[in-house]
This record gives sequence, C-alpha cells and structure tokens, in this order.
Amino acid sequence: MRKALAIDVGGTKIYSAIIDENGEILSEIEKHATPKTFDEIKSTFRQIIEKHEDNVDVIAFSTCGAVNNQNDGIVGSTGNIANDYPLIKFQELSDKPVYVENDANCAAWAEYKIGASKGCANSVMLTLGTGVGGGIIVNNKLLKGKNGAAGEMHFKMYSDKRRKCSCGSWDCFEIYASGKGLKLTAEEMLDNPDVTTYDVVEGVAKGDKKMTDVLNRWQNDIANGIIGLANIFDPDCIILSGSMAEFVDTNRVEAEVNSQIVTTPTKVLKATTGNYAGMIGAALLALEVHNG
Amino acid sequence: MRKALAIDVGGTKIYSAIIDENGEILSEIEKHATPKTFDEIKSTFRQIIEKHEDNVDVIAFSTCGAVNNQNDGIVGSTGNIANDYPLIKFQELSDKPVYVENDANCAAWAEYKIGASKGCANSVMLTLGTGVGGGIIVNNKLLKGKNGAAGEMHFKMYSDKRRKCSCGSWDCFEIYASGKGLKLTAEEMLDNPDVTTYDVVEGVAKGDKKMTDVLNRWQNDIANGIIGLANIFDPDCIILSGSMAEFVDTNRVEAEVNSQIVTTPTKVLKATTGNYAGMIGAALLALEVHNG
Repeated sequence: MRKALAIDVGGTKIYSAIIDENGEILSEIEKHATPKTFDEIKSTFRQIIEKHEDNVDVIAFSTCGAVNNQNDGIVGSTGNIANDYPLIKFQELSDKPVYVENDANCAAWAEYKIGASKGCANSVMLTLGTGVGGGIIVNNKLLKGKNGAAGEMHFKMYSDKRRKCSCGSWDCFEIYASGKGLKLTAEEMLDNPDVTTYDVVEGVAKGDKKMTDVLNRWQNDIANGIIGLANIFDPDCIILSGSMAEFVDTNRVEAEVNSQIVTTPTKVLKATTGNYAGMIGAALLALEVHNG
Repeated sequence: MRKALAIDVGGTKIYSAIIDENGEILSEIEKHATPKTFDEIKSTFRQIIEKHEDNVDVIAFSTCGAVNNQNDGIVGSTGNIANDYPLIKFQELSDKPVYVENDANCAAWAEYKIGASKGCANSVMLTLGTGVGGGIIVNNKLLKGKNGAAGEMHFKMYSDKRRKCSCGSWDCFEIYASGKGLKLTAEEMLDNPDVTTYDVVEGVAKGDKKMTDVLNRWQNDIANGIIGLANIFDPDCIILSGSMAEFVDTNRVEAEVNSQIVTTPTKVLKATTGNYAGMIGAALLALEVHNG
C-alpha cells in the first residue's frame, strides 16, 4: 500500500508520521518544537524528510496559513510562526512529490474520508481551539476560492465593534466561538477579568449556575454562527473539532440550528479522527493527487 | 441556434421570453400577474408553454423558492406565492425538457456567463430588493448544497435579537441589507416610524446629512456581510443586483471589505445583465444541461 510522510506544522509544534492510503498511522508520531526562524524551520523539515523519504511515495504537509490552489506554497500571513515562513518552497525539500494543504482543510478532509462526515458531499468543519479554523467541503471537494484562502471563519457576530478579533477586525465568529471567546464571554458576564476557560469548565462540572450560563451563552454564539453557515451551504453536516469541541453539547446546538434555518435540517457532530486529523487528511489528499 | 422558453416566476409577476444560447432575448417579454391559486398558476404556465413550446428546445424556469438538485421541483417554502406552489410537477407541463432553478441562482449564472462575473470561477451574487437573494458560484458551478437550498443570505449581523427577519429568525443579513433594512435603519436613526426608503434616497440626492448618514450605515451593514462572505469563499468578486443595488457605492464598499478581510482582495461590482437576468440565466443553464 502507498504511503505518505505527513508533517503537521503549527505555531508551536511540528508533528510527523508515516500514513497509508487508509489513513492508518504506521509509525510513531515524531514531535519537534517549531523553531523561531525560517532557516531553522526549513532545517527541521529537511531532517524529518531525509529520515523517511525513501520509505514513502509522497510528502504531505498540513500547515498553518492559507495554501494556494497549486498546493505548493502559502498565501498570505500565518499568525504565530516566523513571518517569512510563507516564503518557503516546499517542493525543494524533497525529490519526492510534495503536497501542501491548510491544516483545517486537511482535518476536514480526514473527517470526510474516514471520519464523522464520511460520505457527506457537503460539510463544514469548525476547529474550536485558541482560535477557530474552518474547512469546507462542497460537492465532494475542498472549497478553496480564487487563491486558496477560503474557509476563514471571520464573519461578524455583531456589527457594533464589541470584541477585537485576532484578524484585526471586529466581532468575528472566531472571537466568540473559540476558547478565547469563552473566556471573554465569562469575563463580560461575571465582570471578572481573571476568570479562565478552565474556571468555566470546572464550574459547569460542579453544577455552578453562573458558569453554566456562561457556557450556554458561548454555545448559543456557536449555534448562531452555524445558522449562517447552514443557510449559506445547506450542508449534510457541521463537524466540530479542536480542544474546545468537547465542551459543546452538539444535540443542543443542532436543535437550535435546525429551529432557525431556512434550508433543510442539518446535523451537528463531533469529529472522530482525533488529534492527528491534519496529518491524516494531508496524507490522504497527497496520495490521492499523486496517485502513481 | 438553440433556444429556450424562459419563464420567471415571482410572488407578484410571471415573465416569459424566448432566449438563445448567447443569452439574447429574441422575443417580446410577456408579463402575467401571478395568480393566487395553484390551479391558476399551473394554467398560466400551460398557456405560456403551449404558445411557444414548438419553437424552442427546452423550457427554463427561474423561480422563487429553493430548487432541488435534480432541477425539477421545489424544496421547502417560497414566501409570497400560493402555499402549495412547491407541489407543482414542472416536467408534466411540457413534452420538451423542463429545467428549473432558483431565481437568484439563475441571475448569478447569467452574470457568470455573460455579465459582471464573466470568467470568475468563484463569485457571490447578492440581489438587494425587498429581501436579499443569494447565488454563489464555486469552482465554476452553482453552490447548491445537499438539497439545493444553499445560498440563503440569512446569517446574523447581531446576536442579541434586534430585528425580526422574514425567515422567522433574528438579525439576518437580509433584514439589514435589503430595502426593508434601509427603511428600518432610517426609522431607528431618525426615530421616525414613517420614513421610507424613498425619503432616504431623495434626501441623499439633495445632500441631506442625516439621510446620507442613514445610507452610509446601510452600506456599512452590506460591507459587514460581504466581509464574512469574502472570508468564507475567497471569491474573485461579489456582484450586487436588484432594485436597491443602484444606491450602493461599490468603490466604498469594496475598499471597506478589502481593508478587513483575511483572504485575498476581492472586487465588489454591480450586475450588468439587467432585469431579466433570472430568465437569461435559466435559459443558459437549461440549454447547457439539455444540449441536444
């Protein structure tokens, strides 16, 4: 069976593994801290690739940042990684074919091929973490847009400038539905700048009424965002992944969404492919495109 | 050259015309009031079709309501037309092939084939009228979703229940960006329940400062909605059509959008195919699908 060396590049960590056409992880997961400079990042990639490239058919990157429609380079900025990282020429890293896709898109693809949205021609995946990532599948293909940057979950939840978003604009879905969004909701509702997401989650577990109200407000914001996406895409399902997804009651959100949309009922489901969805999706995409 | 009989079905009027593969209107436009009952609507369709069907290759409907992915029937409700209109069996109306698509989708397709978004693989069209219609093109195809209902512009502009939308939910883009939205914005800003969209437009033409502020707030709402769509779709362009589009300063909106999005710059343009875009798009779609 054909295999990919999958490399997941985030702002703080770089993971790698060998993954086959079924999405099975065949090796141990290797982990590196993401270096601070362009040269060190490139050197880390070379080190990982040299070790494994003879044993695989393709190199598959799942990376932060928007990836172009040629799947060989990064478009625009990438948040918390070296500023010049987007200049990297991925194909020069190996003599094997190198395929690159955005990490949220890769994770959406993993869910579509072997996870919660398997067989769904139209789905939207939301990765709820420190921020919010998005990967959208339309008609069995990743939605990429004109330059590959589609799927950014920066649509407004309010239009009167309440919360500044990491993108520089105001009141995006990300700054409400993310972990940071939950903290800000708690701060506002409890009038306490020191409250943490952990305090909320722990409070809810203990049955604290105020913390439960905070979590429910956060879930309502998630539902409000999904309502818009469901009306725009009429998707088979919405998949929630990322570290914050575990705190979402998907039945509650699904019921709220279906009570408000004008399109046909959709499902709200949790992702099932786990922490390495990005690598799995990258491998499956790369092996499909470079199919011998 | 092959020809379609195009029929545009709205809540108040039914238009029809013969249209060729270039989108040229070859006949006079015929106009009927939309009857109140299912039987009368069907009878009007039969009357139009019997008159022209021998001279065309296909019957092309551009209709209110979401149209299924088989393009032969309506999914869900349709607003201000007979409640049982969605039950109509279009194919039974003629021995010629009958093709049906949602009117906003048809208009988006007309712009894509011969209008403002010609050659753009990815675009979003917003029809700003009494309400707001949406037609989205992804990768040179209409975005339809699982049941054909995609492209509904009911995403939230606020999350705290300010304006009830025609869809039954709250604060959708439609209830801010439509003509009705402009009236409500004027009512709120001027504290006058009797102010009309005409008052605003006339006031702006006369240089009235307050009315100009109202129009600018409305344009900001339009820009805020487009920011979300541009981040989600990374489109080549956003096309504005409908009776309210003429009051939008597209340069202003485009600059505002491009100053806030995280995807690559997009264009905001006015539609160019005119009042019969729906019929033209329906004809072009029908002639493409039923290509002899």
